[in-house]
Formats: sequence, structure tokens, C-alpha cells
Amino acid sequence: MHTLVFDLISTQYIGSLTALKACLLKAKDHAEANKFDPNKFLDMKLAPDMFGFTKQIQIASDNAKGAVSRLSGKEAPKFEDNEKTFDEVLARVDKTIDYLSQFKADDFKNFQNQKISFPWYPGKFLSGHDYLVGFALPNFYFHTTTTYNLLRGAGVQIGKGDFLGNLNWQEG
Amino acid sequence: MHTLVFDLISTQYIGSLTALKACLLKAKDHAEANKFDPNKFLDMKLAPDMFGFTKQIQIASDNAKGAVSRLSGKEAPKFEDNEKTFDEVLARVDKTIDYLSQFKADDFKNFQNQKISFPWYPGKFLSGHDYLVGFALPNFYFHTTTTYNLLRGAGVQIGKGDFLGNLNWQEG
Repeated sequence: MHTLVFDLISTQYIGSLTALKACLLKAKDHAEANKFDPNKFLDMKLAPDMFGFTKQIQIASDNAKGAVSRLSGKEAPKFEDNEKTFDEVLARVDKTIDYLSQFKADDFKNFQNQKISFPWYPGKFLSGHDYLVGFALPNFYFHTTTTYNLLRGAGVQIGKGDFLGNLNWQEG
Repeated sequence: MHTLVFDLISTQYIGSLTALKACLLKAKDHAEANKFDPNKFLDMKLAPDMFGFTKQIQIASDNAKGAVSRLSGKEAPKFEDNEKTFDEVLARVDKTIDYLSQFKADDFKNFQNQKISFPWYPGKFLSGHDYLVGFALPNFYFHTTTTYNLLRGAGVQIGKGDFLGNLNWQEG
């Protein structure tokens, strides 16, 4: 079972973040073609009381590194959330992918025995299973989708295939 | 391993769709409080060339019933995509939850042996594993998140907790 967990949160998060990075690079090309500064993307929001573009990517990154760390019993590295430019946001995605790439399937052998707690909910925890199924996956895709939606709203030419990234199609 | 698959696409899809339904009911209340017809939500889009609100929910529904059907080797029921009112959209969510509720963990014992193909990509298939990890989960959350984002953009007072729904918090 831990091999499936590995694929869900390491292999696939890497795939999704690689797809997100390709969307970000298309956004940068879009800005260049339309002669505006790509840093103008960073403050976009879908609603005045939602987190903006940069924060969506920072949370996707935190969710990704938090999931592999928590479910393998490791401490996640702290990233400073100090990205101020579009290129720094791209570098945040790369740094997250690099961290995820260090994990192996065996790291998740005890995922079910991890007690997952959060500083914002003292005295409570989720089982490793419940955290994976009900939080880590939905929350990660929430923030990658919201980033994608912000880019679509800004007119960047991306589609569902760009969101999903490479799929392992076979012949037959 | 098939119990985890069951929880990922049956238990959790039901949880996510139940959370989505609660968001839709808050949206209906918001329309009533602000004296507009909730059917006005149905055509909302985040970009002119994206699918609108109703279609986002129809695709989330199709993804959910498609995933449990395909990964258990069953034929998915066809839903007609004929929802024209907000209440009919709510009923579509209920109908999807009802279908998902019929599945049991043992139905997914052979999920890895299923060859998943689509009418829009003839001659190609995904393994059950690759479909689950790289398509069924990201695509489902893409459409539930986009529905949520449309409601946020319309001023409906919902937050991340409404999106995630009930989590199985334990004391300790």
C-alpha cells in the first residue's frame, strides 16, 4: 500500500508541479508577447478576500513538502515565503520538486501510524490515512487549480491537458 | 491496497460532494438574502473560453461516477447533462452521491488490472493505477475547486473548511 501512497504524494505531486511550472512558463511568454511585466500576475485574486497568486503557489508547495514529510515521519524544511518576483515563484516550484524527489516508496511504510497535527488546531490530530485522503490530496489540488484558474482568467492560453501534465498512456 | 482506493474515490468523493452541496446551499441562501435568482449562478465562468458553473459540476459528477465504475470494472450510468436550474444541479450532486454510496471496498480488488480508455483517445489506455493517481483524483478536485472558486468570485461566504468538509479529527 505504501507504494500507492508514494505515487500519490511524491511521483504525482512532482508531475503536477512540473505541469504547473509549464503553465507558469506559458504565462511568462504571454506577458512578454503582450508587453507587460510578468510580476503583474503575482497579486491576482479570484475574490478580494482570497489569497493571491503567489500565496496559492506557496501553499501548494507547503502542502506538498508537508505531506511527504508528515507521512514519512520527517521534519519538513521551512521555506521562507519571501518570493517577490515571478522568477522567484518559479524557483519555489523547482525547490519543492527537488525536495519531493528525495523520497522513496519505503519512506511511507508507516504512513498509517503517523499522527498528523497542525499548529492551528492544538490538541487534535488526523491519522496518516485520513490526512492523506481528506486533506493532503484535496488541498494540494485546490491550490494548483486556483493558480491555473487565475492564469486562465488572465487570458493565458492553457487547457486541461496543461493542468494534468503527462499521463502514462499505453497502446492497445 | 484496494481499501485505500475505496476511501480515495468512494468515501472521499462522497465527502467532497457533500461539502460541495453545502457550498451550493450557502450560495442559494446568498441569492435569497440578496434578492436574486440562484439560477443566475449557472452561467458563471472564470474565463470566456472555460466551461461554466453547471458544466463544472456535471464534469465533477461524471469524473466521480466514472472513477468508481471504471476501477471496479462496471459500466457507469449515463446522466443526461440536462440540468437547467440550480435545484436540478443540487439534485445532480445528490444522484452522484447515491451512486457512489453503492460501492464497497471489495469492488476495487482488481483496480490495477483495469485498462481505462476514453472515447476521445482511441487506441490508448491508462492502467487503473495511472488513471487513479494522474487523472481521476486531480481532475475531480479541479472541477470541485473551480466550482468553489466561481462561488467565491460571486461573493458567497465560504472558506477552505467548506471546501474540505468534515475531517476525522481525533483527540490527543
